[in-house]
Order: sequence, then C-alpha cells, then structure tokens
Amino acid sequence: MTQIYIISGPAGVGKSTTSNKLAKQFHHSAYIKGDLIHHMVVGGYVPPWESEESLTLTWENIADLSINFVQARKHVIIDYVAFPEEVETFSRKLCSHVKDVEIKYVVLWVDRAELIRRDALREKEHQMGARCLELAEMFTRKKIDQRFVYDTTSIHPSALNEVLSTIRDDTRFTY
Amino acid sequence: MTQIYIISGPAGVGKSTTSNKLAKQFHHSAYIKGDLIHHMVVGGYVPPWESEESLTLTWENIADLSINFVQARKHVIIDYVAFPEEVETFSRKLCSHVKDVEIKYVVLWVDRAELIRRDALREKEHQMGARCLELAEMFTRKKIDQRFVYDTTSIHPSALNEVLSTIRDDTRFTY
Repeated sequence: MTQIYIISGPAGVGKSTTSNKLAKQFHHSAYIKGDLIHHMVVGGYVPPWESEESLTLTWENIADLSINFVQARKHVIIDYVAFPEEVETFSRKLCSHVKDVEIKYVVLWVDRAELIRRDALREKEHQMGARCLELAEMFTRKKIDQRFVYDTTSIHPSALNEVLSTIRDDTRFTY
Repeated sequence: MTQIYIISGPAGVGKSTTSNKLAKQFHHSAYIKGDLIHHMVVGGYVPPWESEESLTLTWENIADLSINFVQARKHVIIDYVAFPEEVETFSRKLCSHVKDVEIKYVVLWVDRAELIRRDALREKEHQMGARCLELAEMFTRKKIDQRFVYDTTSIHPSALNEVLSTIRDDTRFTY
C-alpha cells in the first residue's frame, strides 16, 4: 500500500529536516514542500495566512501532485503547515481518485522554549521569530486530536532516526 | 485569455532568468520550474534523460499544476527543456481541461560559442559544461519549426526587456 505522510506543525519545529530524511528512507518516494508550491505564484502573490483562496489553490496543487505520485507507486511526503480541515479535504480528494493509499498525519510539536531555541538555530533568513509562536498558538486553538500530535521536546535533534521510526511505525498517526 | 508560456532551450541559454522576469510582468501569474518538479522525486530519482517514464510523470505534474493555475486565472510560465512532442502532449491535455487558453512555445537559442560563454558565467554548481552542447545538439536534431526558435545570440543579456517584449508580442510563438 502506498503511503502519504503529511508532516505538519508550527514553523521551526523541524518539518523540513524530518520530511527530507523520511523521503530518503523509501526506495520510491516524492517530497512535496508546500511552501515551494505556494511560492509558484509570482504575480499577485499573497501569503497563505492572508488569503484562503490562495491556500485552497496550493492544496489543490499538492493533492494533484500527490495523486500522480501515488499512481506512479511512490510514497509521498508532504511538508507543510496543515490543519485538520485541510487534511480532511485533501484526504477526501485523494481517496476519490486513488485506491490503496494510507494517509498519515503528524503534527510535530515542541514546547515554546524549545521552539524559540530551534528557530534561533536556523539560518538568519529562515528565522521566523514571533511568527513561530503565533503558528503554535493556532495549532493549540484548533484543539487537534492528540493522537496526531508528536511531542519531540525531549528528543535531541541528533536522535532523528528515533523520530522517523515512530512516524513510520506508530499506527496512531493513520488518518 | 489566459496564456501559458513554455520557455524552452538548452541549459545555459537563460531560461530561468527570462521566465522569472516574464512572470513578474503579470498581475496574476505562476512560475513552474520543471527541474524543481522533477526533483520532487527523492527515493528512486533518475535524471530525465535516463528515463522516459520519469519525464512523463514530470510533464503530467506540470500539466496538472498549469490546469489549476489557469482555472485560477493566472498566466503560467513554464521553464523547462521542452521538445515539440512534449509540448504537443501537454497542449492536448490542457485544451481538454480548460478553455480560453493560449499556449506559446519559445525555444531560446544562442550559438555554441555564446552558450559556452554564458554557461561559464553561471555559479560553479550550476555550470553544465559539455552537457550544454549535447542538449543544444538534441534541439538541432529535432528539427524544430523555426518559428518557435528565438535566437538571442546578438542580444546583450542586459537588454532582457527587449526579449520579454518579443516573447509576449510576437504571434509566431503561438502554438
């Protein structure tokens, strides 16, 4: 069965590093970076949090790419800030187009102090500052089903393989 | 009417610079970089010239993204090595999904000496070396309808606006 991993969580939590490494563990896989899809819009660009229409378009694009990759028998790793309602819409579209696909939804999490610490470790131009905490706050407000939330506060970033194994093997992430 | 520009040509000819600037000239536009779509495959990656199957998948992805962007009323600029048979397949798919779309196909061209000169000006990690000439040779062998070929050998790179105006206004590029 082909798997789609939606690796979500606030900015700075480690989505890209985790997704990249996860994609490399499969013989056949594709890595979709949502930010990059959103930034394909050039003329008339608006950030996702300012326009629901632009965010819907990005998710349509992510879904169509995923369908093509699944049909080509590749596991798909999606790296994007994904809230439950977006995962629901995505999942419905996918299941109406492809069979034998398992969707896993993982909201990576760390506590506020660790989030600030990790953000500060990123390259200057990728640091999000206060926006990290705003995004974390949004996840908290959405009251996400705790089974999808993976708190990695106490896991040292060098132990990433442990995180990857849990994401792959723990059935609680299955959507 | 929404327009799709396929900016093709051998590596080093200036596809990315031209496409980027072109996209910025529209109020509503999207820029699809084919290389980037192809590199979404991580596990089992093969370069496009080694696998027709992988190239077909990349064009499927480019087409689906284009359809979504056209439906969102955005002009689309595609930056990729595109040969006539790929443009034909792409064009058929597009026209069966969206109406009122005009496809323009531009094969940017410079002579061999200028191609080598421009390649050497790129950052080290982007230089293609002999591969530039191989690709140019492939375009020559395909005997592309000359109306799609835009020879910019004698246009100084600083006169990019002249190139952009020609691409936008000259009807010979209409597919």
